[in-house]
Order: sequence, then structure tokens, then C-alpha cells
Amino acid sequence: MTTIPASTLMATSEGVRTRTVSWTDPARARFHLRDRDGYEQLRAIARGVAAPPPVAALLGMSIDRVERGRVVFSIVADEMHENPMGTMHGGVIATLVDSAMGCAVASRLPAGTSYTTLELKTNYVRAVVQTTGALYAEGRVVHLGRRIATTEATVKDEHGTLYAHASSTCLISGPPSKGPVS
Amino acid sequence: MTTIPASTLMATSEGVRTRTVSWTDPARARFHLRDRDGYEQLRAIARGVAAPPPVAALLGMSIDRVERGRVVFSIVADEMHENPMGTMHGGVIATLVDSAMGCAVASRLPAGTSYTTLELKTNYVRAVVQTTGALYAEGRVVHLGRRIATTEATVKDEHGTLYAHASSTCLISGPPSKGPVS
Amino acid sequence: MTTIPASTLMATSEGVRTRTVSWTDPARARFHLRDRDGYEQLRAIARGVAAPPPVAALLGMSIDRVERGRVVFSIVADEMHENPMGTMHGGVIATLVDSAMGCAVASRLPAGTSYTTLELKTNYVRAVVQTTGALYAEGRVVHLGRRIATTEATVKDEHGTLYAHASSTCLISGPPSKGPVS
Amino acid sequence: MTTIPASTLMATSEGVRTRTVSWTDPARARFHLRDRDGYEQLRAIARGVAAPPPVAALLGMSIDRVERGRVVFSIVADEMHENPMGTMHGGVIATLVDSAMGCAVASRLPAGTSYTTLELKTNYVRAVVQTTGALYAEGRVVHLGRRIATTEATVKDEHGTLYAHASSTCLISGPPSKGPVS
Repeated sequence: MTTIPASTLMATSEGVRTRTVSWTDPARARFHLRDRDGYEQLRAIARGVAAPPPVAALLGMSIDRVERGRVVFSIVADEMHENPMGTMHGGVIATLVDSAMGCAVASRLPAGTSYTTLELKTNYVRAVVQTTGALYAEGRVVHLGRRIATTEATVKDEHGTLYAHASSTCLISGPPSKGPVS
Repeated sequence: MTTIPASTLMATSEGVRTRTVSWTDPARARFHLRDRDGYEQLRAIARGVAAPPPVAALLGMSIDRVERGRVVFSIVADEMHENPMGTMHGGVIATLVDSAMGCAVASRLPAGTSYTTLELKTNYVRAVVQTTGALYAEGRVVHLGRRIATTEATVKDEHGTLYAHASSTCLISGPPSKGPVS
Repeated sequence: MTTIPASTLMATSEGVRTRTVSWTDPARARFHLRDRDGYEQLRAIARGVAAPPPVAALLGMSIDRVERGRVVFSIVADEMHENPMGTMHGGVIATLVDSAMGCAVASRLPAGTSYTTLELKTNYVRAVVQTTGALYAEGRVVHLGRRIATTEATVKDEHGTLYAHASSTCLISGPPSKGPVS
Repeated sequence: MTTIPASTLMATSEGVRTRTVSWTDPARARFHLRDRDGYEQLRAIARGVAAPPPVAALLGMSIDRVERGRVVFSIVADEMHENPMGTMHGGVIATLVDSAMGCAVASRLPAGTSYTTLELKTNYVRAVVQTTGALYAEGRVVHLGRRIATTEATVKDEHGTLYAHASSTCLISGPPSKGPVS
């Protein structure tokens, strides 16, 4: 499986922009990765040997770093992320932190186990504009129980300036659980 | 100003999908709408006479209904919204509710006033899959003060089944405020 | 089992206040109510035939109304609830809404089942002072699943003015579950 | 000004407990401290030379440590804090974290400035019972702007085991602001 250029942008006359986004059938990626634990799945995506999920291609997010219990996602602020005020939509930032926090949980779950986000709260402390450039969301597991995990995340730019922080609760589910990996 | 088809999808062989997304220079839309209050701005977008913000084109969201203090956004579940588990990414749902709640606040603000989301919490109660079809996020103003507004939202499908609910806090700012419209 | 006057206040010279709070051994109440479902337990407390939990006596909270999926708690604003700014501490309001929301969940659970609050978010929209008088927190079940319930609550005074609103997630646990009551 | 023993407990026959709580007229404390900045006010309370607010006496909370931007509150788990399940009520924990987080903000505000909690979310990860003993809530300022501050807190026992974590948003208000202290 190989990954393809995720998106190309054409800016035409009259202020119309056109962007073409590509992704790979996500069912194939799930099939390929089905026997691996969460950490191995995420490493395969981060190294580019497994396809990222469609939403990552759509928004231009990528996985930058995978450790057990700690995952970093990044995104480069782009006009396509803008809300009516001309700043990055809070939902795009929520997508970034939910990805980082959820994957931080996944990175500690055994193969065959899954999780779902029960709730997610994000605090926004600075507006993100195109000149902000790259944003890094670091998600971290705060508590990992048998059924429930809680997480937190920060969103910073290249200089370490904070733009948002978040916390979430995840429900862990799966086949006869052997418990978290670590 | 006219709107253009927001996106076209091509599914190719080998499981690669390609989608082309288009939007209009958002600075133009802001310039066009600069003298209107929030309600009129949203009505113009909902009627298709002003361009929606880029993120709406990117995700395929649209404004379905605008009342003062209550706004409905919709989206149709699509493979492009999927997380690694094959369900709609929680961040896409967060984008939907943040849009509906923020615009509910905007719909009660006078011209020249703006708002920003301080925090957003979403509870996810059911997974959204492609067969879920259309989702409707109804945002409602709960409290509107001089500086702070709070909101809530529900996300339901066509049958009224609940998928998520949310609340947020917004900070209102702007030129010498004449206070909320209503 | 009878309930006793929950608290008496003495205001002495020199600005020192003394309040005496009484409650009944909570293990006895749990033993008495062990075979009833949540709705019956709450009705017994609301009618005064079972002792309220200690924290209710301590803060002066009471259960005003119990329906399946909807419970109202009340409290009268008192100097003893004050934070350093001279308003009711946000934590007292959080106690009120957590009680109302948790009991709303309990009111739909069968005997032998329990629940725990996973997370609670409260939005504060107006300061509560002693002249606010009685406050009513109405908790309502939003979603009741097999393992997870979500809730919401409002806090209003006698005139219906809103002071706070909240939402929470609860984890349901218990013996071989026969599912929620309704 | 001197502080007095905050509470004394009598356990009588028949499972009735009686506790007497004392506090000092909080308006006096506010008058005494009116010219000091938040840090100095909190230090005065922590050292016992100014009266703590009534709610602290009621619940048995105390300020353990005050630094600029970081404040620790503690409480000893007691039967009086119990909910119907026999564990510490989530609202008591919310009171603890709201105190620690709000005071962390206060500790960086100049004299004449005040703040109010706009929203507070708490995640509960372990039940607190009487044998848990002392709990320590450490509140920390995450972001301090001109009008808005955000905070986070953890709740741990003497061994460092985590019981809850929280975040909040505060609105800063006051006379012609000279900006935060640091």
C-alpha cells in the first residue's frame, strides 16, 4: 500500500479556490492493520506504510510522533480551515485534539480493542490565522482504566505558544479484554 | 456573488478516492457583509447570495435555518469524514455544533460586533456512519450577556435520533457595544 | 427512620457564626433501601422516610421532585455557601447539578445497579447572592444507554431566571444488568 | 483577626451525627483585605491571619500552598462529604478544584481586580472514600489574558494517586485594569 499526495490547490481568477483531496479506501487500511495493537497501527500510519484515515487527508492533518500514551498531530493553518471571521474554525482544532487524544489512548490498547470518545472539551485561548503556520497537538493519556480513559492535549505553534487545550473521556471496548498494554 | 458546486467526488480503481472542493475567497464575503448584523449575514449565506466560509465547503456543511438565537446546520455523513474506526470523526461533529452554536450567538449580535468561542464541550452518544445520512445540528443561545454568551446544541438524524449534544461559552467583542439585538 | 432538623445557626458577637449540622449514618439508609430501584429510593428520601445523604444535610440541599428521568433539587442561598467574593461558591452549584443529574439517571436504573459521574461541566451565567433565595436545579436524562448515560441540568430561581446550566456523563454499572427501567 | 476551630463532630447513639461548623463574617475579611492583590490576600488566609471564606469552613477545605499562578487546597475525606453511594460527592471535589483554580488566577491579579468562573469541567477517575484520607487539589493557570484566564487542576492523595482532574475558564473584571501582575 502506498500513500498519495493528499491534496493540491488551484487558485483561479474571481477568488474561487479549488482543492483536490485524495485518500485511500479506509476499509483496506483497517483490514491491513487488523491484527496489530494500537501502537503498531499508529506507527504504520506515521511512517507512511498504512493509509491515514480520510478525515486526515481532508483537513491536511498528519501524525508526527507516536509514543505509548502520547501522540502528536500537526496541521498547517490554511484558508480552507477558516470560519466566517477568517480564523481557523474551532472544530478543526477540536478535530486535531480529538485525534491526538484518541490516538494516545489507542497507543496503549491491545489488538482487537477499540475506543470511542464519550466527550471532548476544548478551551480556545488564541485565534489561529494563516500566518500562524504549523500547529502541533500533543495528546496524552491522563488515566487509563479497564473501561474508561481520560486524556488531555495542548495545541501550540512552532515557538511553543499555546492556542488551545483540551480534555476528553474515552470508553474502551473490545473482545475479552486482556487489559491495557501498559 | 454566486456560489459554486462545493465538491465533486471521483472514486478510482485501487481504492483511491479523489474529491475536489471549491470555495470563494472569504475576504470578499466579509467585505460584502461588513455592514450587516449577524442575522442578516447568516441569512445571506443560507440563501446562497453570500459565500459560505471555506471550512463549510471543505466538510460539506450547510446552513439550513436561521432564526434569531437559533441556527441549524446540516451535513451528510460521508467517507471523507471518517476516523480510523470507520465512523464520523468527533471533530467533524464538533465543527458542526460549534458552527450552529456560534451562529446562534451571531444571529443576535448587532453589526460591527464579533464573537469567539472560549470553550466547547461535546458529548457523543451514538456513532455516525455513512448510512446515518443527513445530520442536523441545532444551536441555541442559552444566555446572552453583554460580554459572555452560552449556548447548547443537539445533533440528530432525519428521524430525530440523538447522536451528540454540546454546550459552549462565547466571548462577545466589538466596537462601542450597543448591546445585543434582542 | 425519621429525619431530624438538618441544621441550626447561631450568630454570635464578633462576627463569628456557628452552625450545627446533623445527619444519619448513611450506611443505615443504604441498607434500608438496598432492594429498591433508584426511583423508589429517591422517592423515599424525598418523602422524608429515608435519610438524605450527609452532603445534602451539610449544604442544606433537598430533593423537591422525583420523576423517572427528571429530578429537582433545591437549596436556599446562605452565607455558609459563600466564596471569598461573597457569592455562592461555584462548587456548591456543581454539587446541586451533579445531584440532580445523577439522581435523574438513578431514577431510571433497576435495583442493584449503580452509576458514577465520569465528568461534569457547569456553565455559570449569573452570580448567586443571599438575596437570590431559593435555587432549583432540574436534572434530566438526555441519553440512557446500557453502559453510558448523559444528562443536562438548569439552575433557576423562583422567577425562572437562569443562573447556571450543566451537562454530565455517567457510567452505569451493576450486577448482570437487565437494562434500564425505561 | 484570629481563626477559630472550624468544626467539631459528635456521634450520638442511633446513628445520628452532629457537627458544629464555625466561620467569621466574610464581609469583615473582604474589608480587611481590600487593598491587597490576590496573592497577598491568599497568603493572609493561608497563614491564618485572615478568615477563610465560609464554604471552606463548611466543607473543611484549607489552603495549603500559594504561589503566583499555582495554589494547592486540601480536604480530608469525611462521612459528611458522602453521596448516597457512600463516596465523596463529585460536587465537593468540584468545590475543591474550583477553589484551587480560581485562586491560582487570583494569585496573579492586581488589587481591585476580580474574577468569576465562567465554566468548570471535572473528570472523575477514582472514587474517594473515607479511607482515602487527605486530598490535594493543585490549581494552575494555563493562560492569562486581559479578560480571560484558563486553568487546570489535579486532585491527588498523599501517595500521588490521581482521583480527578479539571479545567476552567475565568472572566477577569475590575477597575481600569493595569493588566495581570505577571
